[in-house]
Amino acid sequence: MRWKVNSERTLYRDQWVHVASADVELPDGRHLDHRIIRTAAPGAGLAIITDARVLLIWRHRFITDTWGWEIPQGSIRNGEDPAIAAAREAEEETGWRAQAPIIPLLYTQPSPGLLTSEHHIYTAKDAEYIGCPKDQHESQKVAWVPLADVPQLIAKRDIVAGSTIAALCLLMIP
Amino acid sequence: MRWKVNSERTLYRDQWVHVASADVELPDGRHLDHRIIRTAAPGAGLAIITDARVLLIWRHRFITDTWGWEIPQGSIRNGEDPAIAAAREAEEETGWRAQAPIIPLLYTQPSPGLLTSEHHIYTAKDAEYIGCPKDQHESQKVAWVPLADVPQLIAKRDIVAGSTIAALCLLMIP
Repeated sequence: MRWKVNSERTLYRDQWVHVASADVELPDGRHLDHRIIRTAAPGAGLAIITDARVLLIWRHRFITDTWGWEIPQGSIRNGEDPAIAAAREAEEETGWRAQAPIIPLLYTQPSPGLLTSEHHIYTAKDAEYIGCPKDQHESQKVAWVPLADVPQLIAKRDIVAGSTIAALCLLMIP
Repeated sequence: MRWKVNSERTLYRDQWVHVASADVELPDGRHLDHRIIRTAAPGAGLAIITDARVLLIWRHRFITDTWGWEIPQGSIRNGEDPAIAAAREAEEETGWRAQAPIIPLLYTQPSPGLLTSEHHIYTAKDAEYIGCPKDQHESQKVAWVPLADVPQLIAKRDIVAGSTIAALCLLMIP
């Protein structure tokens, strides 16, 4: 059932984040003061798989103060094709240029109970090494990680980013 | 490599959301004004699997204005064991009580580049029907969905919530 949103007011807004309060009416008539967090741009990510290995970056996330393997991912520029954005982010963050086709893998909402964010995840079968990553500050190291290692990396919390886990596990389903 | 956070200031804060601005220094000396969104409580979810079917709820998310199948999930109460929280949310949202053991499946951060949120996802092998869900406003319907249907439901965007996709795909890896 849909919740009725009677009104909404902005609590905070800048170029990256918009926090609003919605007066939500539940089907039983109760009202909730519910937060909505709007983010600036949707994200695009790319899982490049060659010889049963996936190209990942090992990075620290200062917001959670945790290290983890992630697929390259970033914001889609205004008007940019999400598949182009995914390949661009992969090249900037890893130094590897994905070979076409860039295939849609997954559309996901990281936290649809709180955030408007959307992630468009793609996959590709091959890549060519171009040189050192442009965005070297994004990662500690770049590696081709065996897909077979993914479940144990998740269990060890060496992979924690939601869209990376979703993409890699989806790719491992026979 | 770690980014150095030189300072942080609060931009907005209430009981559910805290938006901060961090002055981040990159290894090359550049500075970023980076947003941090802190959320109130971590989440817990439960994927109950019986006879190759998973207990899901079909719900509308007003924030994204999309419908989708999700595992039952909600906020962990202060001091509550995450496994207990996962089982409580499942019972409240579906009317089914999971049978022990409640097994840790997955720890994930939905959006670690922006949010501090953490989700603790569990799995259980059986459940008992208790009665109508307490939180009937959470879902349009509750159903036991064949795990084998999950990839096509993801492809159709009938499953979009990140932690649900991560949990179900992880469970489908042989």
